[in-house]
Amino acid sequence: MASSAAIGSSNVQELLDLKQNNLNERARWVLDAPEPPGLWHELLDCAKETILPPGNKFLSLRNEPGTKQVASLFQEIFPILVWCRNYKATKFKNDLLAGLTLASLCIPQSIGYATLAKLDPQYGLYTSVVPPLIYAIMGTSRELAIGPVAVVSLLLSSMLQKLEDPMVNPISYRNLVLTTTFFAGVFQAAFGLFRLGFLVDFLSHASIVGFMAGAAIVIGLQQLKGLLGITHFTNKTDIVSVLKAVLKSAHHPWNPHNFILGCSFLSFILITRFLGRRNKKLFWLRAIAPLISVILSTLIVFLTRADKHGVKIVKHINGGLNPISVHELQFHGQNVGELARIGLILAVVALTEAIAVGRSIASIKGYHPDGNKEMVAMGFMNIVGSFTSCYVATGSFSRSAVNFSAGCESTVSNIVMAITVVISLELFTRLLYYTPIAILASIILSALPGLIDLHEVRNIWKIDKLDFLACIGAFFGVVFASVEIGLLAAVTISFAKIIILSIRPGVESLGRLPGTDLFCHVNQYPVAVKTPGILIFRIKSALLCFANANFVRERIMRWVVEENNHEESEEKAQRTTRVVVLDMSSLMNIDTSGIASLEELHKFLDSNRMQLAIASPRWKVIDKLRLAKFVDKIGGKVFLTVVEAMDACLSPKMATI
Amino acid sequence: MASSAAIGSSNVQELLDLKQNNLNERARWVLDAPEPPGLWHELLDCAKETILPPGNKFLSLRNEPGTKQVASLFQEIFPILVWCRNYKATKFKNDLLAGLTLASLCIPQSIGYATLAKLDPQYGLYTSVVPPLIYAIMGTSRELAIGPVAVVSLLLSSMLQKLEDPMVNPISYRNLVLTTTFFAGVFQAAFGLFRLGFLVDFLSHASIVGFMAGAAIVIGLQQLKGLLGITHFTNKTDIVSVLKAVLKSAHHPWNPHNFILGCSFLSFILITRFLGRRNKKLFWLRAIAPLISVILSTLIVFLTRADKHGVKIVKHINGGLNPISVHELQFHGQNVGELARIGLILAVVALTEAIAVGRSIASIKGYHPDGNKEMVAMGFMNIVGSFTSCYVATGSFSRSAVNFSAGCESTVSNIVMAITVVISLELFTRLLYYTPIAILASIILSALPGLIDLHEVRNIWKIDKLDFLACIGAFFGVVFASVEIGLLAAVTISFAKIIILSIRPGVESLGRLPGTDLFCHVNQYPVAVKTPGILIFRIKSALLCFANANFVRERIMRWVVEENNHEESEEKAQRTTRVVVLDMSSLMNIDTSGIASLEELHKFLDSNRMQLAIASPRWKVIDKLRLAKFVDKIGGKVFLTVVEAMDACLSPKMATI
Repeated sequence: MASSAAIGSSNVQELLDLKQNNLNERARWVLDAPEPPGLWHELLDCAKETILPPGNKFLSLRNEPGTKQVASLFQEIFPILVWCRNYKATKFKNDLLAGLTLASLCIPQSIGYATLAKLDPQYGLYTSVVPPLIYAIMGTSRELAIGPVAVVSLLLSSMLQKLEDPMVNPISYRNLVLTTTFFAGVFQAAFGLFRLGFLVDFLSHASIVGFMAGAAIVIGLQQLKGLLGITHFTNKTDIVSVLKAVLKSAHHPWNPHNFILGCSFLSFILITRFLGRRNKKLFWLRAIAPLISVILSTLIVFLTRADKHGVKIVKHINGGLNPISVHELQFHGQNVGELARIGLILAVVALTEAIAVGRSIASIKGYHPDGNKEMVAMGFMNIVGSFTSCYVATGSFSRSAVNFSAGCESTVSNIVMAITVVISLELFTRLLYYTPIAILASIILSALPGLIDLHEVRNIWKIDKLDFLACIGAFFGVVFASVEIGLLAAVTISFAKIIILSIRPGVESLGRLPGTDLFCHVNQYPVAVKTPGILIFRIKSALLCFANANFVRERIMRWVVEENNHEESEEKAQRTTRVVVLDMSSLMNIDTSGIASLEELHKFLDSNRMQLAIASPRWKVIDKLRLAKFVDKIGGKVFLTVVEAMDACLSPKMATI
Repeated sequence: MASSAAIGSSNVQELLDLKQNNLNERARWVLDAPEPPGLWHELLDCAKETILPPGNKFLSLRNEPGTKQVASLFQEIFPILVWCRNYKATKFKNDLLAGLTLASLCIPQSIGYATLAKLDPQYGLYTSVVPPLIYAIMGTSRELAIGPVAVVSLLLSSMLQKLEDPMVNPISYRNLVLTTTFFAGVFQAAFGLFRLGFLVDFLSHASIVGFMAGAAIVIGLQQLKGLLGITHFTNKTDIVSVLKAVLKSAHHPWNPHNFILGCSFLSFILITRFLGRRNKKLFWLRAIAPLISVILSTLIVFLTRADKHGVKIVKHINGGLNPISVHELQFHGQNVGELARIGLILAVVALTEAIAVGRSIASIKGYHPDGNKEMVAMGFMNIVGSFTSCYVATGSFSRSAVNFSAGCESTVSNIVMAITVVISLELFTRLLYYTPIAILASIILSALPGLIDLHEVRNIWKIDKLDFLACIGAFFGVVFASVEIGLLAAVTISFAKIIILSIRPGVESLGRLPGTDLFCHVNQYPVAVKTPGILIFRIKSALLCFANANFVRERIMRWVVEENNHEESEEKAQRTTRVVVLDMSSLMNIDTSGIASLEELHKFLDSNRMQLAIASPRWKVIDKLRLAKFVDKIGGKVFLTVVEAMDACLSPKMATI
């Protein structure tokens, strides 16, 4: 358009006509858009997309013979059938090494997490046998190390303690744990089968960071019991109750041996980790340090008979394979609903941890695990786990990192680990009799710093203040109230954020970028210049609806009035606003309240002798405006772009040519 | 750009260089945007805008002398001081006529609505005295007729009956009503003073339509008691309970006189209304028909002594002016919290009705009432009302329409009406002794059709199916459960709609409109053509956040994979997608989860040897992407428009020139 001045003046009229025709044609494009898909059609599409697997593999197989169909179905459910064909001895060597490293870290951690879940130590070991084996044949993530984890163990005990005291009635408490595990597995499998994975997204990244940090603090506080050898402890998890319990126990005579033993081995583990981080080749030191600590401390206690001097020890651990526990599941009684609710929370938290760690490792290796298959695999491993004396298992942050560093190639490392745990259950449980409880506490404590990500907290603060609010909301909720309240706070703040941003949208005033036909926000682009006599607004929301339509309308009306008052002092006749253009490019949808507001705005502008024009409306918006006859009411002033709206409204003067 | 072919080939290189420079400069505009205002700044701005009146009249007065400041403040609070200076005798003549017409409709309605609120009839008349007078000096809407209304009366009795039975303990019930009225007034005034008017917006247009229709049905059902002369009736309002009560009473002996009397006068009122609608000059017939019915029926009963034959009559009505009721307010006891809650609900519903009717009449007359001043006026009139034996008053749909048709010019018509009611309270209450209750029922029934707007329901269905859901949700909630549940359903569905639309945004694929540099949705504009080798997506949401980021990422990844598979059959080398452009023009904000998703998308595309470019990001989005170093990660490929992104990414071939 800028080059039109160079063309002979005789052609100007022709050009103007051509331009007018062009403008008319383009406006027709907007107004003659086909009807958008209706609500039912959209719902159907959404359901189809949600339930059918991507690429519709099942559908495309319809014409193939039955056996091939079955084979393909099996391959879908058990990915191991696909990759095991290319599995070679060199890969197995790596997996064997990774699996053994993993087992050396897993055994002490499992025993520790079982005590955190208020179960007998062997239940932690059981949980490191069956779930990893099932995940190995069903899972799609290669590096995930399956087993008990700290946060889930804490959640389990903190929520189930309210229903049954594990000290008073350990068997009935264990029944509740197994039933909850079953429910968690059912929910996880259902999420995967019905493709409800988006439910896991409701815990935002920021709130997970805050939640994990809070959980680490709470877990650390719980370890004070083992580390200080306190007998009478609180069942609550918040910082105030725990510190009160610790202070109260300070009045009782206490034994410093536990503390000294725990702290010295904690320092040992932390130093090995530091060394492992400085020198990547020493990462195995970090992995086996807990096992070394257990062996050394057990030997020390055994040789010095320190248990007679007040050092608390693990005592008897049941050996042997996982006992069947189907008969322990309880589906009657008044607690079932509550157990299902706890199962749901555990399912979501467990999936969140596993998916977060699985995805971050997979993205380093450059592949993409299938979220829905992952959920089905975790669901089945927990359902089968609940039949074989396991509690809720998931992918562990710390052990998955070790597995990855140890160079694992496939889920075979999980199989190796499970077999190693089985062997220890059969042979070595008796050797753990003299293991001091303070060592278990220090092993758990040593895994906690990995849950606190201060760097990410700083990032969140820098990038998004409202995200930070969700993050510290979750943190303080977990630390000062309870784990559940922390989760609730995180979800509430996150959704409140969405609603607040939707109901209080800004309206921005647009100006023309020099040398272009583009109209941009004048604050974002200081080079943009406003055109006198015309006001261009853009609504900063995807939805003009009951909750924000009046706000937007009043804001625009006030702006128009102020602009005219402001101009009054200058040459009024020429400069007063005559056209208001609404750039609707960011508006995806509008409802009846929104249309009513636009009609009020139009009446207001009309009674003040101004024109209202609409530029670049989206599909649904233009359709609804047409249906509501709003397009007719504003005289069909709907245009493809802001500049065309301007040209058309100011055309008698041809101001912009 | 299209004209470049006409220019000599020697200049092509120069032009290309120039274009490249231009592109670079424009990309710099995007990247060098100033920092957007922080959260604190935005909160401050929002608070300032919310609390300070528009135009900052108070602030601009600072330099003026004190007396003028006070005068201006008074004019702000009492708009009557401004307009009464130009008030002329001709205007008063119109207002007098309108006020008298209004009074003739108001007196029978007030008595009827008082019985609906389970109060003695005189309380309806009291409510038609003080609130209209106060509104007349403080309100900004000229046509609003203030007094008791059907929906508020129903809400009041249905919610307070649960706390105290009006049959058993009428005095204590009245105390509750007055206290609730006080709370409602306080909330309304607070909404206005703190500019919280947006809270009223939370009842969407569609849900108000449904709610009002449901309330009309429920009110109509309640009138069956008076119309059939039933003694034992239910306290519940849902259709099932009421019909049960009616059926049960059918077994008792009942008196058909009530029914015949009520129905015949109901027909009379409806016929006069029909005539008034056909012939605009007969509108006064509609206005005085209720009064004529009362007078005629009272005469009939008095002359025939029908009350001795089972026709129920009003009996004694206390005459005289509003008694002071300050001592009846109760601010102690366990019910205060509940009363405040009910007061809040009533405040919102009353404001919703008044604002809806005030705004719609004002927009016909071409002025705009000040929402916040309206709320303050209504708040004060209800607070003072609660001190003078009035219950919650607001602007009535039916009477405001009559006031408008009668040609009122200002709130003086409300004053005339109030004075007329005072005169009747002083002189005529004794004459109402024989007024049959069935007539009151038929007067209420005759006002109900105005609350049911089937035409608007059809419109809502046509325009927005989700709005329709909120509408019928409110309707069925009110009719089948209770008024509160109906309101709750409406608000819940409306907000669920916002959340659903935010968390399930579509992603649309864009194509170039022929002859332009514009890229539009290929389904909306069938003329748009896709460019081979490049995929352009636009996210249909204002917020890329935790709840939708993964969904969007997976959808784009799937689309990219499908597109490449599809192209595989054709000449692959040339046509495979090499660039993915994200048009971020509709994205207003992004959070840390959203950025994490974009990073995953980038890694995925990178490992598949595709480039990711970003076009026209908004202010906050580009700022956050810069802070999170995402701009560096994608090699600074951020552009002002889609076409520039395309040109830059395909530049080695200069494909588009």
